[in-house]
Amino acid sequence: MISDKMKTFVGSNSVIRQMFEEGKRLEKIYGKENVYDFSLGNPNVPAPEEVKNAIIKIVQEEEPVFLHGYMSNAGYEDVREKIADYINKNHGTNFGFKNIIMVAGAASGLNVVLKSILNPNDEVIVFAPYFSEYRSIAGNYDGKVVEVKPDTATFEPQLNEFENKINKNTKAVIINTPNNPTGVIYSEETLKNIAKILVKKETEIGHPIYLISDEPYRELVYDNTEVPYVTKYYKDTIIVYSYSKSLSLAGERIGYVAVPEELEDSKNMIEAITIANRILGTVNAPSLIQRVIPYCQEAKTNIEYYKKNRDLLYEILTENNFKCVKPQGAFYLFVKTPIDDKEFCNMAKKYNLLFVPGSAFACPRICKNSILCFT
Amino acid sequence: MISDKMKTFVGSNSVIRQMFEEGKRLEKIYGKENVYDFSLGNPNVPAPEEVKNAIIKIVQEEEPVFLHGYMSNAGYEDVREKIADYINKNHGTNFGFKNIIMVAGAASGLNVVLKSILNPNDEVIVFAPYFSEYRSIAGNYDGKVVEVKPDTATFEPQLNEFENKINKNTKAVIINTPNNPTGVIYSEETLKNIAKILVKKETEIGHPIYLISDEPYRELVYDNTEVPYVTKYYKDTIIVYSYSKSLSLAGERIGYVAVPEELEDSKNMIEAITIANRILGTVNAPSLIQRVIPYCQEAKTNIEYYKKNRDLLYEILTENNFKCVKPQGAFYLFVKTPIDDKEFCNMAKKYNLLFVPGSAFACPRICKNSILCFT
Repeated sequence: MISDKMKTFVGSNSVIRQMFEEGKRLEKIYGKENVYDFSLGNPNVPAPEEVKNAIIKIVQEEEPVFLHGYMSNAGYEDVREKIADYINKNHGTNFGFKNIIMVAGAASGLNVVLKSILNPNDEVIVFAPYFSEYRSIAGNYDGKVVEVKPDTATFEPQLNEFENKINKNTKAVIINTPNNPTGVIYSEETLKNIAKILVKKETEIGHPIYLISDEPYRELVYDNTEVPYVTKYYKDTIIVYSYSKSLSLAGERIGYVAVPEELEDSKNMIEAITIANRILGTVNAPSLIQRVIPYCQEAKTNIEYYKKNRDLLYEILTENNFKCVKPQGAFYLFVKTPIDDKEFCNMAKKYNLLFVPGSAFACPRICKNSILCFT
Repeated sequence: MISDKMKTFVGSNSVIRQMFEEGKRLEKIYGKENVYDFSLGNPNVPAPEEVKNAIIKIVQEEEPVFLHGYMSNAGYEDVREKIADYINKNHGTNFGFKNIIMVAGAASGLNVVLKSILNPNDEVIVFAPYFSEYRSIAGNYDGKVVEVKPDTATFEPQLNEFENKINKNTKAVIINTPNNPTGVIYSEETLKNIAKILVKKETEIGHPIYLISDEPYRELVYDNTEVPYVTKYYKDTIIVYSYSKSLSLAGERIGYVAVPEELEDSKNMIEAITIANRILGTVNAPSLIQRVIPYCQEAKTNIEYYKKNRDLLYEILTENNFKCVKPQGAFYLFVKTPIDDKEFCNMAKKYNLLFVPGSAFACPRICKNSILCFT
């Protein structure tokens, strides 16, 4: 009695989530300290102190009817205003509160955006390796994910293939930089080239192609690498941001969608995203944690901790002849496996080591390790 | 460039939400104290003190990595266990943690349930007057809402018409008791009759018909009226519960779906709902507020406040020849309008009084007043 579509989703259930559940099962048998779970992007640096202090201050000072009640489906205006100000200050944009829609994390943000734009069989281009959840989310709206193959030497996007895959059914492109699972950050040049292709193709096919920038790892960057702000290069950009990793609040479900004024059909897009937020059942991003954000925008998670893990793990692995690109951001290592990736991950499980096979990211024979758990 | 489906949703945007936004506009012009907004079911009794105390205790005592991190998509097991125990104690059920899936409020619960069961053109039966959002949520999955006409004298469900409207496409029935907008509570006899019809029809058509009980108002009951627990009468029942009204936490987005063991295909249903929770982007119900629930299950919102308003408003309105059924639960009055309901609501707006026309509930010439705002 399960719906046909849901049966497909259940059949292709997230390998990452299955590993996470497997890890919890193993922890019950062997003890938490004996299981090394590198599966899920669950921050293990605690949320900064500012979060706790803000929560206590807010529940003590604010009127509970206001604090825990409904607000506009797009979120509290004052919170959105402060987020807009913060982005403007840091990236020279000119967002107002109207350009910011609060959502329940990036996954929810991607859902409301894709629901707002996809007709059945519309295509969404992604660059492998990519977060497999994009496939489920596009599938919710009967959209088709079109993969651009990976350049496994650099994990930079293959732009020729990208250009060739754009056609009149292309509605959107998703980029994710810093990237899950490779940690690669697209350079300004790469973004300019993507923009150039999109501008040309928009004109050719006669309708906008939205560039969706999925940015949960924007703040998690090593070695002072710059993460260019995508709206500067291409006007039809939609930013999907999450505080899951930057403030270690993954379970709280808080983020935003930013829609610039310059975007084609901007006003209707903002309205559609706001209504999608309501009818998909979130109604609004959780209220208390919305109000926490303005107190914590300058707060940072302890990036040094992730960096230490990255350096340590990268060094040991490469010393032992494993190959991987040194990540500039995010908190994963995407390592080439000497044998079939699924087999490798199964063997690792015998040592209570949980990895996600690269094939879950459309990139077989490469295995994803999150670098979270090393201390 | 908005998707065709989304255009339809935007076109039929919630009258209730439009009124809420209109209220905020008027407040800016005339001042908050001069606008009487009876549109949205936004609790105006504060959350009980236990909520605040629990939040402070939890953020001070629990490990932030655990407290704000991802957990299973169905929610924290210990929280689900305590909720199951509480329901079992109060209603003689035998739920375990596995039967409880934490969701981002009832709207999210309805989404994950309907996503799990509806194929395109499957039918969902609802009893008018009904919360118009059911139409949007079923529409998300290309389901069709089939209305049973209201009995405007009592607002009890018309069971003959109900039986006649069941056919092989019927996948689910939604009931909402205590009811939004009428405040009517279905009696045990009514539920037994609904169950009898469904059992007979399930056998006739050869597949289960799920009875979805949408219960955000279960705790908001006057005059000691009993609200029977629906799983006792019909095994294929799914409970969708929300703490939005019972703990005045509407903005926090917290509730659960309860799926009994006895339900047809129970194990697959639980799995599908859990995965739907993930891929619709909620991922999991917000983490901190999940952990608050076990501390507050015995806490009650101040129902006397709503009762006083109900009594006062009911008395004044009936004295002035307005007709309405005296609500036994929830916090609305569904009042017959002497003229066309939309016209009536437009006229009321001139006095900064915001009502929702009954036609928004598939019940024209009756106007919904929430009784929240009277103090």
